[in-house]
Amino acid sequence: MTVSADFMRRLAAVAAAETLPRFRMEGSISNKEASGFDPVTEADREAERAIRALILSEYPGHGILGEEHGAENITSSHVWVIDPIDGTRAFISGLPVWGTLVGLTVDGDAKAGLMSQPFTGELFYALGDGAHFEGPGGPRRLATRATAALSDATLFTTTPALFKGAMRERYDRLEASVRLPRYGTDCYAFAMVAAGHADIAVDAGLQAYDIVALIPLIEQAGGVVTTWTGGAAEGGGDILASANPVLHEKALKLING
Amino acid sequence: MTVSADFMRRLAAVAAAETLPRFRMEGSISNKEASGFDPVTEADREAERAIRALILSEYPGHGILGEEHGAENITSSHVWVIDPIDGTRAFISGLPVWGTLVGLTVDGDAKAGLMSQPFTGELFYALGDGAHFEGPGGPRRLATRATAALSDATLFTTTPALFKGAMRERYDRLEASVRLPRYGTDCYAFAMVAAGHADIAVDAGLQAYDIVALIPLIEQAGGVVTTWTGGAAEGGGDILASANPVLHEKALKLING
Repeated sequence: MTVSADFMRRLAAVAAAETLPRFRMEGSISNKEASGFDPVTEADREAERAIRALILSEYPGHGILGEEHGAENITSSHVWVIDPIDGTRAFISGLPVWGTLVGLTVDGDAKAGLMSQPFTGELFYALGDGAHFEGPGGPRRLATRATAALSDATLFTTTPALFKGAMRERYDRLEASVRLPRYGTDCYAFAMVAAGHADIAVDAGLQAYDIVALIPLIEQAGGVVTTWTGGAAEGGGDILASANPVLHEKALKLING
Repeated sequence: MTVSADFMRRLAAVAAAETLPRFRMEGSISNKEASGFDPVTEADREAERAIRALILSEYPGHGILGEEHGAENITSSHVWVIDPIDGTRAFISGLPVWGTLVGLTVDGDAKAGLMSQPFTGELFYALGDGAHFEGPGGPRRLATRATAALSDATLFTTTPALFKGAMRERYDRLEASVRLPRYGTDCYAFAMVAAGHADIAVDAGLQAYDIVALIPLIEQAGGVVTTWTGGAAEGGGDILASANPVLHEKALKLING
């Protein structure tokens, strides 16, 4: 099967209709606790509901695994994996670096996916034949960087506080070896690696729905995504994404050395 | 004197014409080192040149202090203070959380200022009569939050690595007392405090051009900006910005206690 670019755009659009009107809404709510109104939770739930409805209308035989509404029909060979708002901390802080993630696995392998950021109007997607960008500056094909040395690399992570105990030492070793570390990015970090703006994205304790959509983006743009032990990333866990195989090998060796 | 909203928009526009075409440009450059081409340095220099020319054409008697092209006529009562790209690390990483900063001091006090983010199309500005937003979602007046307890507060900083030695202990104490810390934001953090999306922004070792434009934004939206010792922030240094005076007092007490 193939997924069309148009279907990716429709997925992004139905999610945006639920997330964008609730982004930065808390600024106009005088007493959130008293009203019991929580914009990010509502946006999360309603966006996933809309995404699931669109998928089922187009592909009724496919399975779905979502952050908010759980799993259905996941013994199907084709399973869609959804995080309606990745980066809820960014969302509730007004920062436009959260994203909607929708990925498709076929027999367990991530084959297609999208990350959309409706405030900036950005859509990053991969269909199986390459990775693509649409948004400000116009559409283009995504390609990762050729950076071969850790000392030339930029590295993104959500926060070093993610890494506990011995993992923190291993992370710190990686951070110390790169040219520029950068915090606070969630899914946006992985999109920047796919788009050739950064070299490494690293995170710990991810769920499948945090990473499945991003694997095809990075792989089809020329990059590599694995667990910290070099295994398949589709199940989540501690994840390392690199712009190319040479850099990935060096980063893996350093955190495991 | 008064500065018009239209002049703020023109400042943002001449800067955007130099920064935006160079943002994410490195992705299309195969060998930056060999070509000697550095998009962020060029964007910085050319944007400041354009901003200075516009200021001098409108206010020939005023002084200017800029990050890239230095000081001229700064014994004038009116001095414009410019950082053409605050958040160069975000800029070179493809993240749309950098900004152009232009502030105006009158007899040393910051009275007007803007932060613009051309990729998202956001403009935050203060004229002396309040703080304003223009961009996605439409124009609105900025107002800070009423958050009174540190335990309810969100806190932004560029990175905890900014804080060295005893300062780090004082910063860690503040971070440990808030509900949600968030890293990696530069000027965007201060704009989010002004806009009511966050409660505290804290940074160390700022230059005057990093903060002057942001002081009127936060103050005219209802917030407070001082050094860590409670002094005027116009000269830069270690800076604390809070959504309101009650919260500011508590944060100051904690980092100095």
